[in-house]
Amino acid sequence: MSKVHNYSAGPCILPQEVLQQAAAAVTNFDNLDLSILEISHRSTSFVKVADSAIAMVKEMLSVPEGYSVLFLQGGASTGFLMTIYNLLTENGKAAYSDTGTWSSKAIKEAQRFGNIDIVSSSKDKNYNYIPKGFDIPSDADFYHFTSNNTIFGTQYKEFPEFDGVKVCDMSSDIFSRQINVADFDLIYAGAQKNLGPAGATLYIVKDEIFGRSGRNIPAMMDFKVHASKESMFNTPPVYSIYVAMLNLEHMLKNGGLSTYENLAQQRAKMLYSEIDSNPLFKGTAAIEDRSNMNACFALTDDSLKEQFDKMWNEANISGIKGHRSVGGYRASMYNALPLESVEVLVNVMKKLNS
Amino acid sequence: MSKVHNYSAGPCILPQEVLQQAAAAVTNFDNLDLSILEISHRSTSFVKVADSAIAMVKEMLSVPEGYSVLFLQGGASTGFLMTIYNLLTENGKAAYSDTGTWSSKAIKEAQRFGNIDIVSSSKDKNYNYIPKGFDIPSDADFYHFTSNNTIFGTQYKEFPEFDGVKVCDMSSDIFSRQINVADFDLIYAGAQKNLGPAGATLYIVKDEIFGRSGRNIPAMMDFKVHASKESMFNTPPVYSIYVAMLNLEHMLKNGGLSTYENLAQQRAKMLYSEIDSNPLFKGTAAIEDRSNMNACFALTDDSLKEQFDKMWNEANISGIKGHRSVGGYRASMYNALPLESVEVLVNVMKKLNS
Repeated sequence: MSKVHNYSAGPCILPQEVLQQAAAAVTNFDNLDLSILEISHRSTSFVKVADSAIAMVKEMLSVPEGYSVLFLQGGASTGFLMTIYNLLTENGKAAYSDTGTWSSKAIKEAQRFGNIDIVSSSKDKNYNYIPKGFDIPSDADFYHFTSNNTIFGTQYKEFPEFDGVKVCDMSSDIFSRQINVADFDLIYAGAQKNLGPAGATLYIVKDEIFGRSGRNIPAMMDFKVHASKESMFNTPPVYSIYVAMLNLEHMLKNGGLSTYENLAQQRAKMLYSEIDSNPLFKGTAAIEDRSNMNACFALTDDSLKEQFDKMWNEANISGIKGHRSVGGYRASMYNALPLESVEVLVNVMKKLNS
Repeated sequence: MSKVHNYSAGPCILPQEVLQQAAAAVTNFDNLDLSILEISHRSTSFVKVADSAIAMVKEMLSVPEGYSVLFLQGGASTGFLMTIYNLLTENGKAAYSDTGTWSSKAIKEAQRFGNIDIVSSSKDKNYNYIPKGFDIPSDADFYHFTSNNTIFGTQYKEFPEFDGVKVCDMSSDIFSRQINVADFDLIYAGAQKNLGPAGATLYIVKDEIFGRSGRNIPAMMDFKVHASKESMFNTPPVYSIYVAMLNLEHMLKNGGLSTYENLAQQRAKMLYSEIDSNPLFKGTAAIEDRSNMNACFALTDDSLKEQFDKMWNEANISGIKGHRSVGGYRASMYNALPLESVEVLVNVMKKLNS
């Protein structure tokens, strides 16, 4: 375990074992006497890595038949575009839920291309809750939502129901909870939270939706093109995929999704219990919608800020400064964060109150 | 120097010194006791890396005032799209030269968006030469060409003249030759040849062309958006940028562009001299258009294939199998390839003829 307690919101903590393997491959990969950074993406050694990464995503999430798993580039922000290119018909409309900065950016991009129906929003309360009980028009080309809102610390505990094409940006909670992939037509996630380093984006696409929009889709935006080339239509982000593969291997070895769901719940319980019982702190998100990944909280007395900041700094805690949209603090507790790190933070909070 | 003589066409050889530094940062970056893979792209340490990388590109290429240097994702294939989104007006036309697989892909993408005038092509001879003496219509929104054709081993020795907006895909020869950036409005290059590992794409954009197309440009496709956020509109490919920065530092320390231009000429001279003087080999590209980066050649007697393949394999040469579009052999000689590696290949060729 690293001596630093790494609460970075993303790119974020990765397991030490993975980092050791990742470093070794930079000098000598697969006993080739070459670095993984200087070999062809079409070499036998790397094709094996890419194939393994895909197979392990399928294993972790029990991806059913009829779905393609792709590793592409450009982050969720490119995912916003790919969603539209592949799913929004020329004169159609799409339904979006607006639950934070990233939902809102997805909507902004979609609005360039067509008619967007914002079927629910928590903007009225600075996105501190997840809207419930809204209708999604059945004639929408698709419905899009963001499963976890990194910046505001909210998370859907139950996913909205919709019989049509369902799209979810799971960038910040994928691999931390059980999901039924068959309930979705498209899932995408930037790698840099629970999957690996920045530079790769994971797509899980139901093959049935290929070309659904009827648009003339640019090759780089077309799921069908990428699926037909097994994510190697152009040079993939080799190293990001390699480290993601190592991390998937590590997670599977440790018990897979149930282990990480359990850990996420334990970490969240520890920290939120302290936030709720310590009079010097308050949570900023609605209790029932609190994220297991990103806990947002604030001091009840701002004059303690300097003292608290000094204390967590001295405890070797890193990355808990809140996002400017919310203020206060944000503890991002991604898959590789050990329970010990949460203990250290909770102890600092207790000490502030002693 | 690596024991393997790495002629990979890309991702390709990187300097050993760079690889050692790159590996070290995966376990402990900037004495943070954290990996470069697990820190925020907005951390002081990484922002310094990104700023340095940009400054060093400007230094290497003497980029004049009024240009933005961006590190984005998606490879040249995304560059094809960004070119169009930013430069092709709704009813305008663009001029392209077709000199190989990548030019041809750029044209295919452009044709989805508008009227494309192919002003020159070497397709008639399987792209084995660079067309000269063609006209570019003065009313074209822009003119696009590919400075070096990796697959067919041809390279513009003089760049075509055009008074309008000039765009060049320099993926495979950037940093290996002197260029006058002021002659271009847009230069782009996938990192994975002379710059760094796969996953980052370099753009050098004249600020005057921002929004030139008048289109409603998606944020991820908009140079202005990326420039205004200093390449951090969304999470950048952190590690690829870091290694590119290390490599730029290494190249500048070794004398910058003139050193690498000189080396490229020396390597090319050594290899092409052998190809031309050894009766068992022939070059496949027109002599005056031969690339200094990718030398394509074939055996004059195919029955020697098995023997030659065995010999270069035993000499620890890697990656010289030709691309399926040309056949034969391709020796990619990017910036980090030492002259010694060329000597080894030339000696194997001589030995085959002895």
